[in-house]
Amino acid sequence: MDVPVALLGYGTVGSAVERLLDASADEIERATGHRLRVIRALVRDPARERPSPARAGVLTDDFAAIRDDQEIAVVAEVMGGLDPAGAYVEELLRRGKPVVSANKQLVARHGAELFAAASEAGVQLRFEASVCAAIPVVKVLREALVATTVHRILGIVNGTTNFVLTEMEGGRSYAEALAEAQRLGFAEADPTEDVTGADAAAKMAILATVAFGSRVTPPDVETTGIEALDEAHFRAARELDAVVRLIGSATFVDGHVDVRVQPALVGRHHPLAAVEGPFNAVMLNGDAIREIVLEGPGAGGLETASAVVADLVSVIGTTGTGFLQNDACWRALPRLEPDGYRAAYYLQLVVDDRPGVLAEVAARLAAEEVSVARLLQEQGDGEATLHVVTHEARLGAIRAALREIEQVPGTRRPPSVLLVVSDAGRAGA
Amino acid sequence: MDVPVALLGYGTVGSAVERLLDASADEIERATGHRLRVIRALVRDPARERPSPARAGVLTDDFAAIRDDQEIAVVAEVMGGLDPAGAYVEELLRRGKPVVSANKQLVARHGAELFAAASEAGVQLRFEASVCAAIPVVKVLREALVATTVHRILGIVNGTTNFVLTEMEGGRSYAEALAEAQRLGFAEADPTEDVTGADAAAKMAILATVAFGSRVTPPDVETTGIEALDEAHFRAARELDAVVRLIGSATFVDGHVDVRVQPALVGRHHPLAAVEGPFNAVMLNGDAIREIVLEGPGAGGLETASAVVADLVSVIGTTGTGFLQNDACWRALPRLEPDGYRAAYYLQLVVDDRPGVLAEVAARLAAEEVSVARLLQEQGDGEATLHVVTHEARLGAIRAALREIEQVPGTRRPPSVLLVVSDAGRAGA
Repeated sequence: MDVPVALLGYGTVGSAVERLLDASADEIERATGHRLRVIRALVRDPARERPSPARAGVLTDDFAAIRDDQEIAVVAEVMGGLDPAGAYVEELLRRGKPVVSANKQLVARHGAELFAAASEAGVQLRFEASVCAAIPVVKVLREALVATTVHRILGIVNGTTNFVLTEMEGGRSYAEALAEAQRLGFAEADPTEDVTGADAAAKMAILATVAFGSRVTPPDVETTGIEALDEAHFRAARELDAVVRLIGSATFVDGHVDVRVQPALVGRHHPLAAVEGPFNAVMLNGDAIREIVLEGPGAGGLETASAVVADLVSVIGTTGTGFLQNDACWRALPRLEPDGYRAAYYLQLVVDDRPGVLAEVAARLAAEEVSVARLLQEQGDGEATLHVVTHEARLGAIRAALREIEQVPGTRRPPSVLLVVSDAGRAGA
Repeated sequence: MDVPVALLGYGTVGSAVERLLDASADEIERATGHRLRVIRALVRDPARERPSPARAGVLTDDFAAIRDDQEIAVVAEVMGGLDPAGAYVEELLRRGKPVVSANKQLVARHGAELFAAASEAGVQLRFEASVCAAIPVVKVLREALVATTVHRILGIVNGTTNFVLTEMEGGRSYAEALAEAQRLGFAEADPTEDVTGADAAAKMAILATVAFGSRVTPPDVETTGIEALDEAHFRAARELDAVVRLIGSATFVDGHVDVRVQPALVGRHHPLAAVEGPFNAVMLNGDAIREIVLEGPGAGGLETASAVVADLVSVIGTTGTGFLQNDACWRALPRLEPDGYRAAYYLQLVVDDRPGVLAEVAARLAAEEVSVARLLQEQGDGEATLHVVTHEARLGAIRAALREIEQVPGTRRPPSVLLVVSDAGRAGA
């Protein structure tokens, strides 16, 4: 039986969804007994020329033509942005139409209202494509790991910054690497959302919500971008047998949730260290599974469309069963207080190259009970750069020590802090 | 509503399934609306003492008590072996009971009969746990990648051999590494099935069947184990910036299927090179996804039980929908003829250390149009070891050249051949 599908948006992703549905019609029929077919797509200007034109009669600029068409069984939102996408999705759900969304900011910021609308109407809202494109991390978390309490997610969830960092590892400056990413289409003309970590924060908020069953939104995510990284960080990484990555972490600890995005030194034997260029990867830690890593391209029109189609197929295949159709969020967990996160940290301190400064720095760390695991000292022109790797410590203690260290005479500029993701003591390694 | 579940077998995996169902009862109820509960488990001797005893009244030695109990909604086969597990599973399916199996040899060897029985009775047979324990590769292939034609799978699907190879990389001999694996419980007292590649071959047969929709059985898989690897291979790997891994490959090329298991040199930046110790990983290549890698523990009672429970939940959640309940196999594809596989190869040749031998070896390769990408020569006591890396070539040409080379005067022992999995030209890298 033919199942009519509508799209909100007909850009790179939307047109790829239509093509994939056509190309995979037989596979989808084998999986569901149905053939899915795009019959309408909402665009601003149906007359505009497009690189991949739609079939005649598909494009419309009238949202009501989708909302009010009783034939349309499911809608894929691939237009992006919060407005009007959010209002459209909510209205469709209220009218009883299941929706599949590829819109991370929408799902991360307005998940609560949207899932409430879906739940009231008894229809599904799926969102695999909103996180890491074709990497099926939402499905794996919700279905494959239904019997596992996942207590930590570590992820490289932004391909632009990962490409930039991999290029910087090869010796390029931040500006050169970013320009190269733009030239290759891995970064937008305005890369702000990527380089500040905002894109990664939205994705980590969604993953944390699904994994821990408690709503996390982007403002809950403490976020540091990659703009302040320089070659000294990469030199230190090499010395410490590590690489620099922008890491999203979501942790469930003592009944509290902590989600953050920040640059990190990742030990060279850690699975996330092997993730290069524009790729994404997510590591899930849980009791019954120890660790599972999913890696793949985190962006791209076809890759995103692949996840949209998988969600469409899951909606059509499971409608009416109640199976995994509820909001993943079912409890309100408190956030860990910002300073309560515990981890090993890398500190980069630039100080006067004179006797006694190191001793004073060490004393300030010791006073906050931050113990030093490794220390490298690099001599410069009258100054020294200290690269300090701490043992696991409370972030509050690290911050207190750094405030003290900034007051030490001879400290030349604000210290720089990276997370350390060690490959020692990995599950099973 | 309580859903009664039965187990065939109550060893490490079976008892862990019961514990996980109890511990995750709330999560499973949220996902499906049902609580799953083990009410019966088939064992040989219910009276025997067990490290994790079952609840009173659960254990039985009477298969009919499971087969004939109309209350039992689904059965998990976690006993292993072909006989009597195969007959039990087939009979349960014929009686209309859905089955979840963790038994790779059973699924790989008797999939055709079992899926036919399931299909006739209109019930599900799921088998996630039969491949790579908790890594949800079957679900990802069937559901998340429903719109992607996967044309290649490369996998490290045997943790025992991967542990042994990682240890040998660290300088241990094969015998020492194997003994260490046995001491740590990563290898059985009789490691034959692992070290010969038979275990990996069964898993690759299942993955190929699911990915390509055409039945592949273990005898279709050309298999070489790790027994013949020695320190010269590991020295060469280091020189070539690679590691040694036992690689399963399943390829769909020009309408033909090729599945094989063999030791390989894997370039150090390839995602599979980062898979260390007893871990497993599977790389999937397809048009819409470029590549996705799934990594995790490939064995373990709790890890396997996690996959069994996910399958039980999927069965209960989707019963009656027809969604993905058919046999994954729907077409008969021809096998690629054994010599038709194309790849880059590493050849290790031990020859007399005298002028002219290298030239003769090179001439034999050239005569078969095998071109050499890299060559290392290692001097020994009157002999030289040649490490040759070829460009991509037909396996038939490699074999013909090696037959010729064996006839060259001065060739001291049969050449050794490894696959080469390069990190150059990776999708997106």
